[in-house]
Amino acid sequence: MKATQVTLGIDIGGTNTVFGLVDSDGKRYYHNSIPTDTSKEPPKLFSNICTHVESFLEDSQFKLVGVGIGAPNANYYSGKIENPVNLDWGYVNVVDFFKKYFKVPSFVTNDANAAAIGEMKFGVARDMKNFIEITLGTGLGSGLVVNGEVVYGHDGFAGELGHVEVRENGRECGCGQKGCLETYASASGLVRTTLELLAYYRDKSSLREIQPINLTSKKVYELAIDGDKIAKKAFETTGHYLGKAFANFTAALSPEAFILYGGLANAGDILIDPTKETMEEDMMPNFKDKVKILLSGLPSDEVAVMGTAALAWHELSK
Amino acid sequence: MKATQVTLGIDIGGTNTVFGLVDSDGKRYYHNSIPTDTSKEPPKLFSNICTHVESFLEDSQFKLVGVGIGAPNANYYSGKIENPVNLDWGYVNVVDFFKKYFKVPSFVTNDANAAAIGEMKFGVARDMKNFIEITLGTGLGSGLVVNGEVVYGHDGFAGELGHVEVRENGRECGCGQKGCLETYASASGLVRTTLELLAYYRDKSSLREIQPINLTSKKVYELAIDGDKIAKKAFETTGHYLGKAFANFTAALSPEAFILYGGLANAGDILIDPTKETMEEDMMPNFKDKVKILLSGLPSDEVAVMGTAALAWHELSK
Repeated sequence: MKATQVTLGIDIGGTNTVFGLVDSDGKRYYHNSIPTDTSKEPPKLFSNICTHVESFLEDSQFKLVGVGIGAPNANYYSGKIENPVNLDWGYVNVVDFFKKYFKVPSFVTNDANAAAIGEMKFGVARDMKNFIEITLGTGLGSGLVVNGEVVYGHDGFAGELGHVEVRENGRECGCGQKGCLETYASASGLVRTTLELLAYYRDKSSLREIQPINLTSKKVYELAIDGDKIAKKAFETTGHYLGKAFANFTAALSPEAFILYGGLANAGDILIDPTKETMEEDMMPNFKDKVKILLSGLPSDEVAVMGTAALAWHELSK
Repeated sequence: MKATQVTLGIDIGGTNTVFGLVDSDGKRYYHNSIPTDTSKEPPKLFSNICTHVESFLEDSQFKLVGVGIGAPNANYYSGKIENPVNLDWGYVNVVDFFKKYFKVPSFVTNDANAAAIGEMKFGVARDMKNFIEITLGTGLGSGLVVNGEVVYGHDGFAGELGHVEVRENGRECGCGQKGCLETYASASGLVRTTLELLAYYRDKSSLREIQPINLTSKKVYELAIDGDKIAKKAFETTGHYLGKAFANFTAALSPEAFILYGGLANAGDILIDPTKETMEEDMMPNFKDKVKILLSGLPSDEVAVMGTAALAWHELSK
């Protein structure tokens, strides 16, 4: 029997590291999740992954042909994870490690770029050459695809749309700048907007009974669905900033679509409707009614593994 | 004797159309300029160009191998000039015309994209794969280069950085939107900023003796060099907006350099110094001190022909 070729997709998160084996049609054969132990040397985590995967591959009908890795501050060109904020690892060449261990081509990039490739190979961007993948989680990440390739830029770190300024002297951002898009359009941005609206409006709202430190985007969502005026307005405002940014990104890159995934994207129409409205309003006339806003075609609990596995497939097909 | 291979570069401007023959090393052998007669059908202009070029090529040692055309609202994909604002032509397939006439491959794009390719082939971007060409004339045009290719986007009209919003509810733009970058960072933007500063400050300035309709960026430049406080401040403010935008474009695309050309770019340090200052100040920390701001390496009176001729050379080399 001929062995099924698979790639190993690994997503290194701040809390957990997930990994799995995926064939070239996007069928997943193996999945695992282990804690990202940031206190130890990274190779300990890497070799743990290898041990798990190797024991699965042993005597199986699968043949590993490549490894794709997603990690914060990962540099596609150098193969290194470069001093990530949440992982106290300094600089570590993750590509070298897996290439030596499994003796197959290995590649690394950040999670949003991997998701963009996953979307192109297995999701809703299968026929697209130019689109922008946006992850709306605690922050806002993005992967830009131009001419069918991810934009890595000169130094490997392109695609940081979350850190484009949308408001002069706006909100403080974790990156050290002010007014970055992700301080408005993300789960944490939505919470900040909610607080601002509670200050501005006088309406009654059960949001006023929640300590700011305990306020979550999920809670705002539930209240918005229940009809809370402030909560609804918070989604409108978030969509407004996102739509404004999408109009600008369109002038620059003329994408066929913006594709959303991540926790906040699951809010759906309550977020997407105001995003579309502002995007069209702010769009340069020749781009109006041309650009789609879509939800990711990848299952949300699989996007990390599918994306990184797709990174390996995409590179192998070059 | 072996014939020297040349491409024909044609730049169709609102007033004049310039064209010339350029070999693959960037040596120019022929140059001409004729008025762009917008009242007549475009093929009249096109056949005029052909007649001139053909009579030069006759009995010469040159062999025409391709045609590159730069025009407003030109679509690289369709080969058409699509309803340009300053030329009352509607839709016209300019690529078809020249392909049929000269029986060589022909290509069209807008002037800023052509300039970017010229820069990559003959100018200061010869070793660059990721950079942004910016033309600072009456407006602000741009050509984005990613992975060694111009970004045309899904519909062929990407690269409109002049119409990215830099100020919410900002100045009215010719495109119908508000707050576009080119309403601040361009020759006309500089003049508008000057008027705003004359309103804000109380300083004496000979700028107050010029009717707004007669105020030009050249005049503001001369007075700035002479030490006029308002004129100097106008350049600082213009550079401030440009630098802010460059920091944002860097987060998105991580270019190696911004390369400036066009009338206002000739102002040099008085514009570039404040641009650099704000760019570095506003830059996401991981991009600081990495991105260059350069002046074009193409002679300003030749950039149009060199760029369009380079477009043809670039496409022929694929």
